Amino acid sequence: MTTIKDSVHDHIAVEGVASALLDTAAVQRLRRIAQLGTVSLVYPSANHTRFEHSLGVYHLACEALDHLGVHGQQAERVKAAALLHDIGHCPFSHNVEELVYRHTGKYHDDVEELLASSPVGDVLRANDLDPSAVAGLIAGEGQYGQLVSGELDVDRMDYLVRDAHHTGVPYGTIDHERLVRELTFLDGELVLAEGNVQTAESLLVARALMNPTVYSHPVARIGKTMLRRATEHLLEAGASTAAEVRRMDDYDLIAALRGNERTERYARAIDDRDLFKRAVWAEFDDVPDSLLSADHDRVRDLEADIAGRAGVDPEHVVIDVPSRPSMTESTSRVVVNGDIRHLGEQSPLVDALRAAQRSQWRFGVYAPDAVTESVGGAAASVLGLETDGGLVTEVRRGDYATLEEFGHGE
Amino acid sequence: MTTIKDSVHDHIAVEGVASALLDTAAVQRLRRIAQLGTVSLVYPSANHTRFEHSLGVYHLACEALDHLGVHGQQAERVKAAALLHDIGHCPFSHNVEELVYRHTGKYHDDVEELLASSPVGDVLRANDLDPSAVAGLIAGEGQYGQLVSGELDVDRMDYLVRDAHHTGVPYGTIDHERLVRELTFLDGELVLAEGNVQTAESLLVARALMNPTVYSHPVARIGKTMLRRATEHLLEAGASTAAEVRRMDDYDLIAALRGNERTERYARAIDDRDLFKRAVWAEFDDVPDSLLSADHDRVRDLEADIAGRAGVDPEHVVIDVPSRPSMTESTSRVVVNGDIRHLGEQSPLVDALRAAQRSQWRFGVYAPDAVTESVGGAAASVLGLETDGGLVTEVRRGDYATLEEFGHGE
Amino acid sequence: MTTIKDSVHDHIAVEGVASALLDTAAVQRLRRIAQLGTVSLVYPSANHTRFEHSLGVYHLACEALDHLGVHGQQAERVKAAALLHDIGHCPFSHNVEELVYRHTGKYHDDVEELLASSPVGDVLRANDLDPSAVAGLIAGEGQYGQLVSGELDVDRMDYLVRDAHHTGVPYGTIDHERLVRELTFLDGELVLAEGNVQTAESLLVARALMNPTVYSHPVARIGKTMLRRATEHLLEAGASTAAEVRRMDDYDLIAALRGNERTERYARAIDDRDLFKRAVWAEFDDVPDSLLSADHDRVRDLEADIAGRAGVDPEHVVIDVPSRPSMTESTSRVVVNGDIRHLGEQSPLVDALRAAQRSQWRFGVYAPDAVTESVGGAAASVLGLETDGGLVTEVRRGDYATLEEFGHGE
Amino acid sequence: MTTIKDSVHDHIAVEGVASALLDTAAVQRLRRIAQLGTVSLVYPSANHTRFEHSLGVYHLACEALDHLGVHGQQAERVKAAALLHDIGHCPFSHNVEELVYRHTGKYHDDVEELLASSPVGDVLRANDLDPSAVAGLIAGEGQYGQLVSGELDVDRMDYLVRDAHHTGVPYGTIDHERLVRELTFLDGELVLAEGNVQTAESLLVARALMNPTVYSHPVARIGKTMLRRATEHLLEAGASTAAEVRRMDDYDLIAALRGNERTERYARAIDDRDLFKRAVWAEFDDVPDSLLSADHDRVRDLEADIAGRAGVDPEHVVIDVPSRPSMTESTSRVVVNGDIRHLGEQSPLVDALRAAQRSQWRFGVYAPDAVTESVGGAAASVLGLETDGGLVTEVRRGDYATLEEFGHGE
Repeated sequence: MTTIKDSVHDHIAVEGVASALLDTAAVQRLRRIAQLGTVSLVYPSANHTRFEHSLGVYHLACEALDHLGVHGQQAERVKAAALLHDIGHCPFSHNVEELVYRHTGKYHDDVEELLASSPVGDVLRANDLDPSAVAGLIAGEGQYGQLVSGELDVDRMDYLVRDAHHTGVPYGTIDHERLVRELTFLDGELVLAEGNVQTAESLLVARALMNPTVYSHPVARIGKTMLRRATEHLLEAGASTAAEVRRMDDYDLIAALRGNERTERYARAIDDRDLFKRAVWAEFDDVPDSLLSADHDRVRDLEADIAGRAGVDPEHVVIDVPSRPSMTESTSRVVVNGDIRHLGEQSPLVDALRAAQRSQWRFGVYAPDAVTESVGGAAASVLGLETDGGLVTEVRRGDYATLEEFGHGE
Repeated sequence: MTTIKDSVHDHIAVEGVASALLDTAAVQRLRRIAQLGTVSLVYPSANHTRFEHSLGVYHLACEALDHLGVHGQQAERVKAAALLHDIGHCPFSHNVEELVYRHTGKYHDDVEELLASSPVGDVLRANDLDPSAVAGLIAGEGQYGQLVSGELDVDRMDYLVRDAHHTGVPYGTIDHERLVRELTFLDGELVLAEGNVQTAESLLVARALMNPTVYSHPVARIGKTMLRRATEHLLEAGASTAAEVRRMDDYDLIAALRGNERTERYARAIDDRDLFKRAVWAEFDDVPDSLLSADHDRVRDLEADIAGRAGVDPEHVVIDVPSRPSMTESTSRVVVNGDIRHLGEQSPLVDALRAAQRSQWRFGVYAPDAVTESVGGAAASVLGLETDGGLVTEVRRGDYATLEEFGHGE
Repeated sequence: MTTIKDSVHDHIAVEGVASALLDTAAVQRLRRIAQLGTVSLVYPSANHTRFEHSLGVYHLACEALDHLGVHGQQAERVKAAALLHDIGHCPFSHNVEELVYRHTGKYHDDVEELLASSPVGDVLRANDLDPSAVAGLIAGEGQYGQLVSGELDVDRMDYLVRDAHHTGVPYGTIDHERLVRELTFLDGELVLAEGNVQTAESLLVARALMNPTVYSHPVARIGKTMLRRATEHLLEAGASTAAEVRRMDDYDLIAALRGNERTERYARAIDDRDLFKRAVWAEFDDVPDSLLSADHDRVRDLEADIAGRAGVDPEHVVIDVPSRPSMTESTSRVVVNGDIRHLGEQSPLVDALRAAQRSQWRFGVYAPDAVTESVGGAAASVLGLETDGGLVTEVRRGDYATLEEFGHGE
Repeated sequence: MTTIKDSVHDHIAVEGVASALLDTAAVQRLRRIAQLGTVSLVYPSANHTRFEHSLGVYHLACEALDHLGVHGQQAERVKAAALLHDIGHCPFSHNVEELVYRHTGKYHDDVEELLASSPVGDVLRANDLDPSAVAGLIAGEGQYGQLVSGELDVDRMDYLVRDAHHTGVPYGTIDHERLVRELTFLDGELVLAEGNVQTAESLLVARALMNPTVYSHPVARIGKTMLRRATEHLLEAGASTAAEVRRMDDYDLIAALRGNERTERYARAIDDRDLFKRAVWAEFDDVPDSLLSADHDRVRDLEADIAGRAGVDPEHVVIDVPSRPSMTESTSRVVVNGDIRHLGEQSPLVDALRAAQRSQWRFGVYAPDAVTESVGGAAASVLGLETDGGLVTEVRRGDYATLEEFGHGE
């Protein structure tokens, strides 16, 4: 048994197959992938990695399995899946995965292939575990897959608490021990036992408050789009392929960006935190539907149009269209008076948080500080955005408060 | 300067008038008043007192005044009010104040009179502060009164964090430092500065999650009604007057209850945690309006009727009608695009939390474990409650899970 | 299974015999005994009770037994002992136990008798546990008794962390999870496994730093002597017997002190924190050996002599002679290169901490603020203390800094 | 004013010159330098950076200056020095600085030159601060330099607490707020005010417990020597100069090591945590003095001799000679009875901790797991180490417990 000291869960005991997996290069690589990517540009303490998160997910999976009374090979399989669930992640976690998806058709590295072919597969097979079964659990398949990837999975229980701990933002501080203790299976579905409507709500609320404050903080989003743009140039320059990028760690990607003449200025801008600012920051209802559905090439064309109209370097306009608002946790299931109910049926909070999320959703156009005004104006006319009311006010807030910049979004 | 070590805010520096007030008997009395009354029957660590809370409120008031740039006598007045804001509290905080109100017309001791007449008044006057002005601030009057008693007051910022710390329930863990830093006055109104809709929401959410889990936990409510019933007997027996009770500390009240033959059995039941259980636990919509508006005498009559029909000792039926759902924080004000808006207009969460609160609201009838079934049946027919559907199920849940009993409500 | 939320260990699962013991009046009484007695006069947040501490000790015992692989009745016996270990404590924990000892020959209530006769005994027997065996474990007898009461017992692991948490003083923050995981039995002795010299040292250091800062803080000691003096009057007045006092809870004792004319002024002084101050504060080497060995009657005579010489009310002089410095943890055992060694042999820290403890040891004479100077002088001559050098300086420090008074000792 | 959220100190307000310094590339570079270098190989959560530490030191400096009543330009100078104090650090903090020293004669980059020449100097001069005066403060010169670099500097107060927070090891949890509040100047010397012998001791103890557990953990030391060896090859291969290395960040160094054929295998070993193990682990008294004084070339020769005798690849033997035990904090000054005393005179702990430190000191020879036995034997005879008693036992402990490896040293 290996015991590892963790800043969130204190001592984590690693046993069985997990102990052998720990030493594989694929798991050790997670030490060099920042859990929150460019969020550390806003919250300087947020330097935690996918490795410690994976250990935490493994730890909570062990506790949940113990409470559920699951033992033996079934439990080993789930524990392996918990430890390995992020093994296919790209460098900087979610920051460049969209790009990788565009080129490879997959957001992540191919987990099933990765498990089958690498030394990870050897370890699994040596412990009588089928790599493709483990990959299935990671994909949320089957009864036990719900524990690893689903509305009540231990993944989100760990990341909420861990991200709160490392950013210093208390909103993610859920009662993860209670959640883990109250999980139960009913008719093959993972649910929270009787008396836990509020426990389920607290998970939803934590996610809803962490989202704009941490995960979608404007400055983190700007950093992410700059990193993605730079990586795109890297691919276009033929310096790396998407398949290579997705197997890099953060060090590889930064080194590649610094070493290429087309991307070097982006690398320096991120290093020096010399970031673009918001030229447009528009609400969901002010954005034409065509823009929400625009594909990548169309977006690049629009950026060029805006740059042309504003008379600026085309590299100085970045459009950032987040996906439409959605809320996974709303379908988490709770037992109420003996019946399984979706939280969305039971709790008025679900609709409200969905509305709140929609009202916090923002479309962004970013540009260097000196040209935000001209780019903002050009973007409004090129994109057909509403130019009166909230939008213009928002555009004018190019010089937004530093507390917000460093600490919190609206 | 006195520096006091606090488990929540670490070091609290006490200066000026507060330093002199600290040593008065009226402030020292707060050491012997439990912050959460009978909540410690559910959460055994919740033994914190009004004294440490008052120090915390004083501390946050100092920080807020500093950020607001308020100094001199105006600041001293607010700091005195912050330290003294709970000085009129009854023993066990809010547990018996309803009873005191019924007999004296005041929930608390008369703060204005208390400040004027006691050594507290002497200290205030010696520091050139007018006791009645301080009492006004405690009542939330004037621009600065909003800091002490209002939707964004430092009182709630301290108690949410402190109650979370001592119960172990994380839901109250707000970002109190951010709240204090973002307070500002606009047109004489205390508001949160631009960019803080979510900060305001987090306060609301914390309150909404702490409420059923901690403040209105069924077991705490049962303990409270038993304590109140016992105190009522004490008054009826002429052993103490309501005016005396409100000046007692927790020790006095417990001693009085132990020492009177009519109340001694209640004292022992609370000591031994041998509490009544829920015979009825009904939702808001299942409770006739007449019951919600019933006055105290009418409630006592109904208890007697239920006991009669169930054939049990009249002392063995207690009706607990909470006041109608309400939500103070919904009117907290935030600056959005330069205008002051009520949070209720700005955030869809307010209505949802109001609905959630209404759905969590419960009417209770309590009785000894052995007779909950007969009392529940009798109560349903005497009170005209719906007997099918949710209610009956709830009544049957007399044998509810201990995790819920000790730890959390639904 | 009952799950209880604790502010230190989060969720504590209570099962088996412990679950039944929880509801006995003898265990519930611990809710009303302050863990640190008069320490809350210095650290206002230190209002935690013997009940939550006992739960914590039970929790750590469960973890330790699990790591040690002890199950079945043996484990149940140890768990019962852990939960019950403080059941005989006097009100205000250690504050009045010396007095009780003088009158009854026992520091605590008689644990063996208490276990045998009360409903606690019934519960134990109903679970096939022998009350006297459990009492033996509480007394530290046998191999497993070391877990409950010994140099490496789980009692001290809980109280150090808990007292640190509630006072806000970080020095007690040991790595209790590591300690519990590294406990092992070697030749029937409870030891820390190989590689833990420093783990053992950290326990010793935590105790050594908490001692003068918290447990023996001058103000806590003054409060304690005043409480003890008052209780002594209560006994002398025949209002209560020592056997009664030791079964009281804090509420009973305070009520008794308030209700007796000889003790009522002490009760008020403690309530109002209107405490005596140090008239003498002498180092170990400056105190004659005869004084260290003086019995109670001799001490009372000396107090009268001092009062006479100083011309003050005899009630206004209290002598406080702590027992000679000692250090339990110094004999804790650690495995080094396969052999069991006493920490004292292995670590140079043990001797140093013993020396530090001796240098921090203080003999005190306390008196009301206004007469500390005259009482100090009279005491110096009556007791034959050194009057030049350190002592006089200390006596002059009657007006010591408030940070020290509230927060820390030297 | 910029407000930055920090996981240790919560909100840090950055104002004045510090606010402008924050945006310089030299300060932003600290985001990419791990505070504890290879310690994250042992404690996976220890990924915090010099940037957040520098912010913390700045924050504590502001608090200390405020308590000391220092304002204006003098305060600005100290604050700038606090924020900039680590600006010259090499990649991986202290891991390669010895190597840089050997080649450049300086452990760090030249701080004075760095401040004078870079944009940092422009910012300082624009704020009427003399760069060389700031460099002097960083070097600990003058009265105020003691705050930045001295026995009671705010640097160590931040790093102890921060390293404890991020490793999860509680030993560094000092009462930093108390320390900062009790600092005072007496005759131009920075001292702790009366009543703080124990406060000073706690700082010393924290450092003494963190040292073997965290800073000098065997695995961290092995990682460090491997990183240093690799960097040495890089210099020898002419791929980089020492002057270049010291201006790199962690990303640059890792990229350089991965990209060079002589160092690439070291980079992979560190990435995969495939580390050498201890072949020799000898106590201070068992190491010949000549070895302690051996210069670098001599050490390289000895490594070659050992490899030759053991018949292994010369790259597979690394000698690690730590510098002789020393203890900075022992000369920290405390006021006792009005006089300044060195802690070493006042506290018996100082000598004991010095002895403990000496007893924990270890000389190491590291080699791949498969050859530790042969390398250990060869080293013992080449280096003239004692081969009986403790040493041999230690050598045999090549298969040491994983808890120790991951979590704690002895």
